Amino acid sequence: MTVMTAADHAVDSSAYHDRLMRVRSAMAEHDVDTLLLSVGHDLPYLTGYTAMPLERLTMLVVPRAGVATMVIPALEAPRVRELSAVFELLPWGETQDPVSIVARLSSGSTKVAVGDQMWARFLVELLPQLPEASYSRAVEVVGPMRMSKDAAEIDALAAAGAAVDTIAGELQRGEIPLVGRSEAQVSAHLSRRMIEEGHDKVNFAIVAAGENAASPHHHAGSRVIREGEIVLCDFGGTMAGYCSDTTRCVFTGDVPAEVAEAYAVLHEAQRVGVAAGVVGTPCEEIDRVTRKVIDDAGYGEYFIHRTGHGIGMEEHEDPYIVEGNSLPLDAGHAYSVEPGIYVPGKWGMRLEDIVVATSDGPRPLNTSDHALLSVSA
Amino acid sequence: MTVMTAADHAVDSSAYHDRLMRVRSAMAEHDVDTLLLSVGHDLPYLTGYTAMPLERLTMLVVPRAGVATMVIPALEAPRVRELSAVFELLPWGETQDPVSIVARLSSGSTKVAVGDQMWARFLVELLPQLPEASYSRAVEVVGPMRMSKDAAEIDALAAAGAAVDTIAGELQRGEIPLVGRSEAQVSAHLSRRMIEEGHDKVNFAIVAAGENAASPHHHAGSRVIREGEIVLCDFGGTMAGYCSDTTRCVFTGDVPAEVAEAYAVLHEAQRVGVAAGVVGTPCEEIDRVTRKVIDDAGYGEYFIHRTGHGIGMEEHEDPYIVEGNSLPLDAGHAYSVEPGIYVPGKWGMRLEDIVVATSDGPRPLNTSDHALLSVSA
Repeated sequence: MTVMTAADHAVDSSAYHDRLMRVRSAMAEHDVDTLLLSVGHDLPYLTGYTAMPLERLTMLVVPRAGVATMVIPALEAPRVRELSAVFELLPWGETQDPVSIVARLSSGSTKVAVGDQMWARFLVELLPQLPEASYSRAVEVVGPMRMSKDAAEIDALAAAGAAVDTIAGELQRGEIPLVGRSEAQVSAHLSRRMIEEGHDKVNFAIVAAGENAASPHHHAGSRVIREGEIVLCDFGGTMAGYCSDTTRCVFTGDVPAEVAEAYAVLHEAQRVGVAAGVVGTPCEEIDRVTRKVIDDAGYGEYFIHRTGHGIGMEEHEDPYIVEGNSLPLDAGHAYSVEPGIYVPGKWGMRLEDIVVATSDGPRPLNTSDHALLSVSA
Repeated sequence: MTVMTAADHAVDSSAYHDRLMRVRSAMAEHDVDTLLLSVGHDLPYLTGYTAMPLERLTMLVVPRAGVATMVIPALEAPRVRELSAVFELLPWGETQDPVSIVARLSSGSTKVAVGDQMWARFLVELLPQLPEASYSRAVEVVGPMRMSKDAAEIDALAAAGAAVDTIAGELQRGEIPLVGRSEAQVSAHLSRRMIEEGHDKVNFAIVAAGENAASPHHHAGSRVIREGEIVLCDFGGTMAGYCSDTTRCVFTGDVPAEVAEAYAVLHEAQRVGVAAGVVGTPCEEIDRVTRKVIDDAGYGEYFIHRTGHGIGMEEHEDPYIVEGNSLPLDAGHAYSVEPGIYVPGKWGMRLEDIVVATSDGPRPLNTSDHALLSVSA
């Protein structure tokens, strides 16, 4: 199983106690009595331990005051690095009902915050056992903390970004063969290189050729890459607990005028979007200025998604760079700026960097060439 | 992203309509008004489409009567193979609220069944929008169907099983180097071989040497394998939509008497467990007869987990082979029989086959050597 352990994270163990104190302050502020964390990234953020995504329940139960308890399958208990200042371990046996244990530890709660990615089955089972409780998303109390990265976290993001930039450079110099190979083969190549460059886990490696590039979440398949088409590569993984994510396009041959014109617009939109990442700017404003460049050039209908997403331990997390998100950027916020232009049936293009907002202005973590380079067959 | 598409599945497209009809009968039987399926395996079982595990919601809304609707992010809509006899597609845009769309499609429901692995955040958001509803697990209506595999599904499981058996054979013949390599390196080797043998995705490749083998869910790490110790390998993946899962142990040198004696008990327990898989036998009875062999030999305290789990599109699914599960085995049920003996700080061992219950008796899908073989350094 590809499961992170505490040792893989860029976080010093003493930081976990500090995070728990801060999360409890946030719980008090939001009247949350109990915080429940299972599968997902809030749990490793607070404890260094990642729950296995299986039917046997792992759940950290954090009361606003008193001892936090990690309810864990007995046979997974040896995996956990115990942090006695942070939580107690409560292993359950194969014939016990772990949800009733969580209900007992949460009894009397009127507001319970649950982690986003917890399996719904456990909430369904919990509902009748805590009839007085109302529920909220844990992101309310953990999200703001996770959003503002500290220096060690930014270093980890930068290292992961540098690793994928190395691979983007290989792609752009034509060192990764494209023509005659399937998208899936190139995807496997990118994946292998991410591991070789120090990633612990590949999260995705989208390779979309020609008309397939018009589907932003295309699944790399058996389609063989030909001469004279665009190849969109969007890839990222997890390295020391933090994620990379970058998109570069290359063209297998001379770039036709139609594609070059659109790419110039995309390039400018992405540049403007990155430059807008000044502390205090609302997230939606970054989306607006990026989109305006594409709209003004007449490609607006082909930019069919938000401009970006936050990134950290998770590939997609707060803050989202989307219309409707008025949250002002703060120092330490890390997010993608990734406009795209997608012409159905013809071609698509996207250009993506991760950016960290700092008091000195936006700091891009991806610096490979931003041009649409021609690669020879 | 490693996401299955309809084309990858062993299922004929006409089967999806039949499955929808059967699930609706089950909904009527259990008074379920609306079935909600998102991330997880019930959705591809009914539609051939696997939801991306992201913050943008994909949700199949199945009312007991009327049209089923797949609510999907607009930019992921091109990924879906539409099956007009099964569902309609309802793409939502980047600034819409998909949960309110699901609430509208579910309005008036008093009992809503939700998929096990749906992200809890979406249920948290749905709760206040459907104040009259109570919730149950979708497994109540979809589980029995998924549990009873048809001929095509059993063929797919058998093919996946044969693929991992090939690799187990290589391990047992000493063709996979062990001594001097780290567990992680051997894990990567097994993973690569699973892909080469036709798997689309590696789900896990546990490699645990010596004392590490005493932790059943050990994470393969930097520990280097030495001469004269046991190496436990438990690996599986997904091939054409269906899973493999097998465990074999080998010994790097001559097997000491203490280990050989324990293994003889384990081997017999596993044989008895497989043989007990007769249609009509309660699942817990398979656990009991397996456990009894180990208990009687005095190793009972070292067998710290259930005997097995169902398997299909998911590595772990119903039926679970565990005390307390009185469900009688039916033809087409597929499950693991995997007793283990774990002596903390010293060594551990496990032996695992997938078995299908048939009217002619249990059919094991893993047939590599069941002995604890010595492999030379």
